Amino acid sequence: MGAVGAAGLGATVATATGPADGENGTEIEPFHGVHQSGIATRAQAHATFVGLDLAADVDRQRFAGILRVWTEDAARLTSGTPSLTDSEPELAHRPARLTVTVGFGPALFDRIDRVDRRPPWIAPLPSYAIDRLDDAWGQTDVLLQVCSDDPITLSHAVRELVKNVRTQVSIRWVQNGFLRARGTEPESATPRNLFGQKDGTENPRTTEDLDRLVWDDGHRYPWLAGGTSIVLRRIAMNLDTWDELDRPARESTTGRTLDTGAPLTGTAEFDRPDLDATDRYGIPVMPPGSHVARAHFRHEGERFLRRAYNYDVAPPPGQVSDAGLLFAAYQRDIHEQYLPVQNRLAEFDALNQWTTPIGSAVYAIPPGVVDSGDHLGRSLLE
Amino acid sequence: MGAVGAAGLGATVATATGPADGENGTEIEPFHGVHQSGIATRAQAHATFVGLDLAADVDRQRFAGILRVWTEDAARLTSGTPSLTDSEPELAHRPARLTVTVGFGPALFDRIDRVDRRPPWIAPLPSYAIDRLDDAWGQTDVLLQVCSDDPITLSHAVRELVKNVRTQVSIRWVQNGFLRARGTEPESATPRNLFGQKDGTENPRTTEDLDRLVWDDGHRYPWLAGGTSIVLRRIAMNLDTWDELDRPARESTTGRTLDTGAPLTGTAEFDRPDLDATDRYGIPVMPPGSHVARAHFRHEGERFLRRAYNYDVAPPPGQVSDAGLLFAAYQRDIHEQYLPVQNRLAEFDALNQWTTPIGSAVYAIPPGVVDSGDHLGRSLLE
Ligand code: HEM
Ligand code: HEM
Repeated sequence: MGAVGAAGLGATVATATGPADGENGTEIEPFHGVHQSGIATRAQAHATFVGLDLAADVDRQRFAGILRVWTEDAARLTSGTPSLTDSEPELAHRPARLTVTVGFGPALFDRIDRVDRRPPWIAPLPSYAIDRLDDAWGQTDVLLQVCSDDPITLSHAVRELVKNVRTQVSIRWVQNGFLRARGTEPESATPRNLFGQKDGTENPRTTEDLDRLVWDDGHRYPWLAGGTSIVLRRIAMNLDTWDELDRPARESTTGRTLDTGAPLTGTAEFDRPDLDATDRYGIPVMPPGSHVARAHFRHEGERFLRRAYNYDVAPPPGQVSDAGLLFAAYQRDIHEQYLPVQNRLAEFDALNQWTTPIGSAVYAIPPGVVDSGDHLGRSLLE
Repeated sequence: MGAVGAAGLGATVATATGPADGENGTEIEPFHGVHQSGIATRAQAHATFVGLDLAADVDRQRFAGILRVWTEDAARLTSGTPSLTDSEPELAHRPARLTVTVGFGPALFDRIDRVDRRPPWIAPLPSYAIDRLDDAWGQTDVLLQVCSDDPITLSHAVRELVKNVRTQVSIRWVQNGFLRARGTEPESATPRNLFGQKDGTENPRTTEDLDRLVWDDGHRYPWLAGGTSIVLRRIAMNLDTWDELDRPARESTTGRTLDTGAPLTGTAEFDRPDLDATDRYGIPVMPPGSHVARAHFRHEGERFLRRAYNYDVAPPPGQVSDAGLLFAAYQRDIHEQYLPVQNRLAEFDALNQWTTPIGSAVYAIPPGVVDSGDHLGRSLLE
């Protein structure tokens, strides 16, 4: 996923000749801001999503304590400073664009006695016939999304964040994802998924689009102003059966070519797909059942930001691979923006034959922390 | 682990200002050569070790077929060319220093009717009181070691190599490891493990040392000339109890400081540890039970090459992390070089309190493939 590309909000400076030896490590994504980082941030090479449940005795006050610790830890670690209780400070000095993003699951609102402030779209997605959901990847109280271009920095940061609250949370799942390493391709290149497709071409990128589609304006839920929501789906990709398809069949399944990622009605990646174009027999050039034709927004209000990561873990006995997508979508309103598209795809999408949703969770993403006296989630808790 | 550093045999060109945007992806480690690559190669950021068992009907002739396929695939993939049956050719164009290294386990020699050519050191290590070995990470017939600076390239290469022989092998385990991403630190920096220690400081680096210590000269086993052996141990590191130690205690456990990696008798990382130095009370400055004091070679013939990777996988329920080292040692003769050190450490090593070997396997690494008519392992099979 290309996420926000050159128009992004990150602090990253790209130069024509690339950074000096080792310089990627010192790049910082600012923690403080109106929005949490890790969303409009150009996607880092590695991501770890951690699904956490709160211990039975964690109430609003104790949860505020957890959020204060995370705010402090995240502010430090993302700037290359060891956490206050860091036992491996040497692993903290190279942030490599580290970001920490915190989300709140539906049950959290009950737990902290804030049911009235839960937007109705912070709720499980409808169940779909295509789903084969495993609760091992299911909804949790809280989400930590941690991303960095460096895997050691990432591993260390996740550990610091979790260990400092270990008596008050339990880990339900850890999902590790990856894209191209920094420096493998030009930074503007759209990453590829493990089907070999460019994934992330069509995405809101400008600040205006993000303000309109991703960041909440606080109109309905004042506490959420500057925040957003995430839908996180673990979607298995059947590489074995995909391998049996020839290239033309794959390309019409998606509606885009594999090499350049151009729509079947165009020649370059960023050409707009023309869903009405027909060939000389009157047959649509973009198959109406293709993933892109089905997923394409019917009106601007159906758009959202995709920022997916690949996963590839040790296969179960007898299999060659266990791989897929950590599909992450960010939007103001899941019901308005995400569900129409998801419903359409669940109803029909040529790609469904090779993909299977096995995990699903949604979280409200509270606004960012503007100044150092503040902490994550305060507008919801107070 | 720093592996071979600037004196390495790789084709990598390091410049003062670093590579241009995306240029890391096009760097190639030559596949053809007297030795297999991936050993003297400066350690790439990511490694996948795959332990494979041969199907019951794979005899010498069929195994030769597998090795021919792997040779062909590896020669292509490492040079950025899709494999002959590549179904995601777009994922093959950025080798990012991809290497493929093949090893032969003890039982393979029986299977292919070459028992007389098995060096006696290609055999399970003695069992040690410190071991808590799980067969899930145990000895297999064959090893594939695949390394790259890019995780997508790596994932794709592993899949291509395995899927093309899927009916003839089964996967016992997949072990994924990582170091710093390319570009996070200067390329000459020694990587750190998840205890925060510089790991790989003391290592043979010059071509002369490697010829003497790592590469077999074919004297006893002519087929092995140019080859070597690997000991691969999965060693769990207990980050939780390690975190309870203060810094001075950690440093005397290892015999080196955490920040610079200098021996306790020196001030800079590459200062030689002085095992005889005492303080004014006559107490040794390097604790005799420290890891470095115990591990240090008693004579040159006890040296070997360490090229370890960190692992960090989803923790089992109730735990905060499951992390450690994929400890990989390469030497001509495991009995002569590796065992004396391993025996000493198993007998006593202050570090043992925080580390637990949970997997162990050894493999002969056949020589490299010099010209394109040749294939991996031919000197053993013919
Ligand atoms: C493993 C599962 C999936 C794969 C492999 C996949 C792959 C792709 C690819 C290759 C594209 C075209 C390039 C691009 O614009 O990014 C695309 C577009 C898109 N996908 Fe997916 N996708 C998956 C799941 C989903 C899901 C679950 C949703 C939402 C419910 C979704 C929504 C979209 C949207 C909105 C577009 C842009 C369509 C347009 O307007 O051109 N995708 N996807
Ligand atoms: C998780 C387990 C281990 C950890 C965390 C660890 C860590 C370290 C560290 C921090 C050093 C000092 C820096 C360096 O020279 O690389 C070191 C050195 C060394 N280690 Fe280990 N090590 C582990 C297991 C082993 C094992 C299993 C062996 C061999 C059986 C071994 C053999 C050595 C040797 C030979 C040295 C160099 C000593 C010298 O001559 O200065 N290590 N290790």
